[in-house]
Amino acid sequence: MQKVAVIGVGNSKFGNRNDVNVQELAFEAVKQSIEDAGVSPTDIEFVAFGSAGAGAWYEESLPAVTISEYCGLTGAGLVRCEAACATGSAAFFTAYSAIASGYAEITAAIGVEKMRQIDTPTAMEFIGRSGYYTWEFHNFGLTFPAYYALHATAHMAKYGTTEEDLALVAVKNHKYASMNPVAHFQNKITVDDALSSMVIAWPLKLYDCCPITDGAASVILASEEKVKELKIDTPIWVAGIGYSSGTANLSKRLDYVGLEAAVQASRMAYKMAKITPDQVDFANVHDCFTIAEIMAYEDLGFCKKGEGAKLIREGQTEIGGKIPVNVDGGLKAKGHPIGATGCSMIYELTKQLREEAVEKSRQVPLKNYIGLAHNVGGTGHYCYVTILRR
Amino acid sequence: MQKVAVIGVGNSKFGNRNDVNVQELAFEAVKQSIEDAGVSPTDIEFVAFGSAGAGAWYEESLPAVTISEYCGLTGAGLVRCEAACATGSAAFFTAYSAIASGYAEITAAIGVEKMRQIDTPTAMEFIGRSGYYTWEFHNFGLTFPAYYALHATAHMAKYGTTEEDLALVAVKNHKYASMNPVAHFQNKITVDDALSSMVIAWPLKLYDCCPITDGAASVILASEEKVKELKIDTPIWVAGIGYSSGTANLSKRLDYVGLEAAVQASRMAYKMAKITPDQVDFANVHDCFTIAEIMAYEDLGFCKKGEGAKLIREGQTEIGGKIPVNVDGGLKAKGHPIGATGCSMIYELTKQLREEAVEKSRQVPLKNYIGLAHNVGGTGHYCYVTILRR
Repeated sequence: MQKVAVIGVGNSKFGNRNDVNVQELAFEAVKQSIEDAGVSPTDIEFVAFGSAGAGAWYEESLPAVTISEYCGLTGAGLVRCEAACATGSAAFFTAYSAIASGYAEITAAIGVEKMRQIDTPTAMEFIGRSGYYTWEFHNFGLTFPAYYALHATAHMAKYGTTEEDLALVAVKNHKYASMNPVAHFQNKITVDDALSSMVIAWPLKLYDCCPITDGAASVILASEEKVKELKIDTPIWVAGIGYSSGTANLSKRLDYVGLEAAVQASRMAYKMAKITPDQVDFANVHDCFTIAEIMAYEDLGFCKKGEGAKLIREGQTEIGGKIPVNVDGGLKAKGHPIGATGCSMIYELTKQLREEAVEKSRQVPLKNYIGLAHNVGGTGHYCYVTILRR
Repeated sequence: MQKVAVIGVGNSKFGNRNDVNVQELAFEAVKQSIEDAGVSPTDIEFVAFGSAGAGAWYEESLPAVTISEYCGLTGAGLVRCEAACATGSAAFFTAYSAIASGYAEITAAIGVEKMRQIDTPTAMEFIGRSGYYTWEFHNFGLTFPAYYALHATAHMAKYGTTEEDLALVAVKNHKYASMNPVAHFQNKITVDDALSSMVIAWPLKLYDCCPITDGAASVILASEEKVKELKIDTPIWVAGIGYSSGTANLSKRLDYVGLEAAVQASRMAYKMAKITPDQVDFANVHDCFTIAEIMAYEDLGFCKKGEGAKLIREGQTEIGGKIPVNVDGGLKAKGHPIGATGCSMIYELTKQLREEAVEKSRQVPLKNYIGLAHNVGGTGHYCYVTILRR
């Protein structure tokens, strides 16, 4: 198996980006990543684009093509990848495989989403379709907060997880977002703020939900040979990728206290990387809702099943704790531009592993120099787990 | 580089398929391909879905997930690929790479599209967006036949290609479709029929345009080791894949008499396969409009630039000619369910290379046992060229 490294990363400012079109938004991230890698756009042989809402959330149906032209990448092999909210990670795997297969030497994974051009009810309908449209969305009217509320109530009933535990996740992630200039939200919040916010789908309140965000992130990958040729200072190696999927209908799942696809994807990733969960220094997990972060702690093996709430209560997922999680603000507060999120996780992992987090106060301590990204599509419909190692 | 073979193929009936939903349509192809390969659905580790119109042409936003559940593939790694009309080939490359990279042993590429659920003007608008929405569709009102009409007039002006030459392509492809039970159109036509049909965008008339078709196709791939373990009778090896892309704006192209992305993609594919164009026994090319087939002859090197019309006039692309092309009816008459087309080309190549075309009269003579698929997205925005070898 050919070794592949991340050699360049870029991340646009996340937030309400009605100041730019989708091409310009992607350019912010692509330019950074190309300069960071020290390559030229024409060196990139294959590009995997992550975008879920092309032609729906924004007007371009072929963003891979229009963004390539705008960024000077025309001529490269192109594909747009979609795996709902795991879209960015699916693009990363695709860009990785194009090198690992021996087809290309330098590739890019570019995630982008512009979600704030349309009104919120329409955006919510599109997201709500990300289960089984015919059955669960159309017949039962389940929107996305409602899907995750089912998980939250199940977890509360079985393990005694509380509304306060959920609020603690929001408080932590807002704190780190306030230290991260690219984050959508720059404000700290308190447990009281979270608990007293508007109920969206009980027990989830406004502050338990990630925002609707515009953003882009870009990652340049290279083969081992190119890493040497380009004399890359600090290549960040892809140690392992795991993937799995869950049933379209939630009603066909065995239980609601975790995501089986995440358990399977993480096992595969650990096996490929030849590591155990306790060797991971820090992680970015898919906290689209606060309950999702608590389930992720458990699904990834950072604690036993049912003990996720204990981890957040004890502050073990803060910097200085056992396993820092989402110290960039996470989806919850950095924002969740759907197609970009997976690539933005790789951006954060790379910056941390290089120890060049711009804001030194956000640097996690590194022992094994291993970071993990956990990116879920739908409610465990897709899952990709990516492990990077310096 | 790990060797990868096609070990199973399936193709649904193409046409107006309002008798089934998108899951059922995909199932027709997936079931055939799994039975053909002699594997079980749970053996498939990774699935690349090709569908361009999810959530627009049909209601499911996450067809990869709903089709996986319906076909018993849940648990596999999933991604949906989009490369406009080259979507199926992009999915094939992705499924190929997942094995070639060493990540998986058995994967599937499944292409599906249901395009006839919505009214034709809306479908045409969606397809028309497959250029640069902001500039060329929105500002200049270019629809898809109009894009290819620009190519046709350029080719006619420069090389003397005539409306009759275009009609000959339609006549040939209808003839073969009439011999192919899965084809959308089952009727033969004459040059007079084609020339007297309604003008859509001069010089393109109704019979110069492919229809709007529902359909699915599925391909199962395996590593060399699995091919041995499963004792596959006639593995069809992936000899080479090439890819490239063109500018989003047609106005930025150097000329309109060919597609540069196709030239580049085919060069890459020939190089990977270590062959020259004259070693190809037969080809399936992207004839969304008749002019596209003539340009493909030239872009792929089956003749010199400007001599494509001569090839069709002389009958060289018929069975018995120098290089049989689209003897399944092509997009023009078998139909073009966008996300399925690339996988359906692989289906046809595999059947021909195994010499098990159901309709023996359609079997091409094989000398080198090499077939080529040329799949274009947009008007050369994407291109994938795939070479298979027995």
